[in-house]
Amino acid sequence: MAVTGRSIIAGESVAGTAGRFRAVNPTTGEDIGPEFTALTTDQLRSATEAAGAAFETYRSTLPSERATFLEAIAEEIEGIGDELIETAHAESGLPVTRIQGERGRTCGQLRLFAQVVRQGDHLRVRIDPAQPERTPLPRPDLRQRHIALGPVAVFGASNFPLAFSTAGGDTASALAAGCPVIVKAHNAHPGTAELVGHAVATAAARTGMPAGVFSLVFGPGREIGTALVTDPVIQAVGFTGSRAGGLALAAAAAARPEPIPVYAEMSSVNPVIVLDGALKGDTTALAEGYLASLTSGSGQFCTNPGLLFLPAGEAAERFLAEVARIAGGSTGQTMLTSQIREHLEAGAGRLSTHAHVTTVATGSAGSGPNAPAPRIFSTELDSFVADDGLSDEVFGAAGLVIRYTDVDSLVTALHRIEGQLTATIHGTESDHDVARRIIPVLETKAGRLLWGGWPTGVEVTPAMVHGGPFPATSNSRTTSVGTLAIDRFQRPVCYQGLPADVLPEAMRDENPWGLTRRMDGTLQQP
Amino acid sequence: MAVTGRSIIAGESVAGTAGRFRAVNPTTGEDIGPEFTALTTDQLRSATEAAGAAFETYRSTLPSERATFLEAIAEEIEGIGDELIETAHAESGLPVTRIQGERGRTCGQLRLFAQVVRQGDHLRVRIDPAQPERTPLPRPDLRQRHIALGPVAVFGASNFPLAFSTAGGDTASALAAGCPVIVKAHNAHPGTAELVGHAVATAAARTGMPAGVFSLVFGPGREIGTALVTDPVIQAVGFTGSRAGGLALAAAAAARPEPIPVYAEMSSVNPVIVLDGALKGDTTALAEGYLASLTSGSGQFCTNPGLLFLPAGEAAERFLAEVARIAGGSTGQTMLTSQIREHLEAGAGRLSTHAHVTTVATGSAGSGPNAPAPRIFSTELDSFVADDGLSDEVFGAAGLVIRYTDVDSLVTALHRIEGQLTATIHGTESDHDVARRIIPVLETKAGRLLWGGWPTGVEVTPAMVHGGPFPATSNSRTTSVGTLAIDRFQRPVCYQGLPADVLPEAMRDENPWGLTRRMDGTLQQP
Repeated sequence: MAVTGRSIIAGESVAGTAGRFRAVNPTTGEDIGPEFTALTTDQLRSATEAAGAAFETYRSTLPSERATFLEAIAEEIEGIGDELIETAHAESGLPVTRIQGERGRTCGQLRLFAQVVRQGDHLRVRIDPAQPERTPLPRPDLRQRHIALGPVAVFGASNFPLAFSTAGGDTASALAAGCPVIVKAHNAHPGTAELVGHAVATAAARTGMPAGVFSLVFGPGREIGTALVTDPVIQAVGFTGSRAGGLALAAAAAARPEPIPVYAEMSSVNPVIVLDGALKGDTTALAEGYLASLTSGSGQFCTNPGLLFLPAGEAAERFLAEVARIAGGSTGQTMLTSQIREHLEAGAGRLSTHAHVTTVATGSAGSGPNAPAPRIFSTELDSFVADDGLSDEVFGAAGLVIRYTDVDSLVTALHRIEGQLTATIHGTESDHDVARRIIPVLETKAGRLLWGGWPTGVEVTPAMVHGGPFPATSNSRTTSVGTLAIDRFQRPVCYQGLPADVLPEAMRDENPWGLTRRMDGTLQQP
Repeated sequence: MAVTGRSIIAGESVAGTAGRFRAVNPTTGEDIGPEFTALTTDQLRSATEAAGAAFETYRSTLPSERATFLEAIAEEIEGIGDELIETAHAESGLPVTRIQGERGRTCGQLRLFAQVVRQGDHLRVRIDPAQPERTPLPRPDLRQRHIALGPVAVFGASNFPLAFSTAGGDTASALAAGCPVIVKAHNAHPGTAELVGHAVATAAARTGMPAGVFSLVFGPGREIGTALVTDPVIQAVGFTGSRAGGLALAAAAAARPEPIPVYAEMSSVNPVIVLDGALKGDTTALAEGYLASLTSGSGQFCTNPGLLFLPAGEAAERFLAEVARIAGGSTGQTMLTSQIREHLEAGAGRLSTHAHVTTVATGSAGSGPNAPAPRIFSTELDSFVADDGLSDEVFGAAGLVIRYTDVDSLVTALHRIEGQLTATIHGTESDHDVARRIIPVLETKAGRLLWGGWPTGVEVTPAMVHGGPFPATSNSRTTSVGTLAIDRFQRPVCYQGLPADVLPEAMRDENPWGLTRRMDGTLQQP
């Protein structure tokens, strides 16, 4: 399949007339692929209109039909074959094995959402039967289900060209909920987006979905982003990216005559707290684990462990010496774009010249223009607390290690940190009492708490939360990874006294979809 | 118990120093009760600080402890006895029997939330056991529960001095979720608020809750409201009131450095659609039902049926003649405040002088200064569609009947209406085909769909939704009535690989709380 540089609007290839741009291979700095054509806002409107027109048909599909569509998307993506891997590798600079893994994850989560839809628990059906004998007034029959919100705009992420982009988690969960989706492709990997976009459009056609259920649009981020978010057809937004980008979309959505929810996953420094017992263990293994997590994918993960707290002392210095040795011998990997590389260099530069920050290690730059050296810094807890700037995200392979001298000051410092996607504790049996003090603080700060291990690597399962308090996300009550993500694109509706033959099937007495339902407050399995 | 005119901050009576005001008996127009003292924003801060300090202790209470607290509140409210009924009646002008019923509902919903907390399904626990043998990488143990968001600000509603005020649905659901609550009393019924506030504070003390779990504050709405919503301690807001009030709070919350959710239930005209078959039935009964719903509580319900659509023709005229006869002979009831009465008169005045609106009936004013005559108007669908102003809420006993000539035009008009709390269809067997066309439209417009009956009268049950698309509420994905309301004040947290003895109890293998939990995606009952 050839990449054409055209948007896909409701199954049709559309050449934009608002300008052209090209993808860049960050490994070489060279332009690659065809010219991509940017849509005008008028052209964009044909995508939102098609989504609006498709909404009623799409949300009315049977669970099995919608599940088949999601599975067909996975098949079509797999069907693209090596061209997808090569294109994504060239456009992102991410290693081929990583892209292969990400394809597996992307298809896996589409199939997981297909299972969710087939099972139907996301409909959250509740039935309170009528009580005709109740006094003083009879109780009417009340039934509740969740329905799709409406067309959803999804903004592809720079750092996951597959799993958080065209057919990534936001798209999969919105489609699962019954919402048509319009994806704004990330301009860093437009060819990848187009290949996947054709896979989705083909799957929609093959499974009889209305064409407007999916569109993929190319254009300048800010302009087309604002036009999308403020289009009255759009009812919710999924976004993964920078804090500035997320806040701009949230502000645009809040200023609409009819405000809509924006689910923006923005920034996080993912504190790792090493407790005494853990530091007494194998410091080499700890240093290896830390650096592997910090530098994996050139550090371009939302869950990158940007801050590591550890108890000051001899063991801490041993750990830092190991970090210096390993990181000092490491080589930078290509970052996604030159802009992201520049941001990293600026952030690392600020740390390196900070009066109270020491450089622990500087690796070697990798080959090509965009593979900066991994860098590790250290500071003391007092200095960290005194300067909010030290907790700012530095996106990439740069980490700050913070020595603390006592648990009380550590707890006070943790109370002050911003909202995070994750927080990790490294401890042993002897640390459990301290952990019991820290966990309640971290719970109020993060969407996921880890004991041991490292925050990079996010499982796609029912229990996963990839979310957290502001500014990690714009809405802490949700997740963008895992099956709970579907809830973002639904709302509850109550049906009072409807005759059986006009009542939607999910709520009928005979339970034709075999759903687990809450009857008078108690869950009842079919 | 004497009403003192003082705020209750973390169990203490506090005289405000920012001015004084008095309650007004709307039946007579006279001042009643003692002077109430308004808090300064500095004084308010002691309430938010106490709430912040109480949060950790309160959210860590066992389900049984929290449930006992909620039940104790109900007991304490009942223990106030007739003084509560008399005070609320005097301050609101609402009939004694209505206030008695509202007390029952208020205590009933506190006890219902106690049940919900004891059962524990609201924790929504999910467990994905570790898969140590998985390749290429083992899967860690992942567990999810929902935790309390943090201190919540609740704004008492004018029209429900008990059920949507100090210890109403927002307070009950926030306390159930584990959030301390600060209630801003509605200045129309401050004595009622203080009596109930003491009941909550007494219940907190009696059941060993931290004092800061509850405060009740008096002050000028806008100023103290903005101060509350922008206080960094506050993590969510519950509001029932006007669209202007709700939007102002939402804007203030969105402009915070750390934005927070505002659950505002604002305005709704609750369309009733009468289909052909239903109009062929007993038009007298239909007219009686309509007017009873429209004028009950002087029409001051969020779910008041402000718009009624019916097929033009002879039966419609018979219905309108019945409406004219009954409403013409009806007498106005006292409204909550002179300001609300003035708003009603202005709205009804606009309808009465509208070029394309006919006055169907004007009842008689009731006794006292604030009991305006019920009024019914009619118009044609074309005129209704041509003027958005005709769908504006007129809060009170005023209704607009709209004649439609064909179902296609009706469906087109329904597509254009704003978000609503409810939508009602009156139909018979012969109308089911038309209903199947209309229901999908109404579903996207309202939080609750009724077949027959009238939208006033909102059951407090698991399946209820008192919510709906903007501008009915600021967040269509929730409800402010019914057990699902608790979800508004929680967020999910995932725990990865935590050792059993630091893991919160709800998620431990042995399931000490006997919860229904989702294991690897499948619900498992204890």
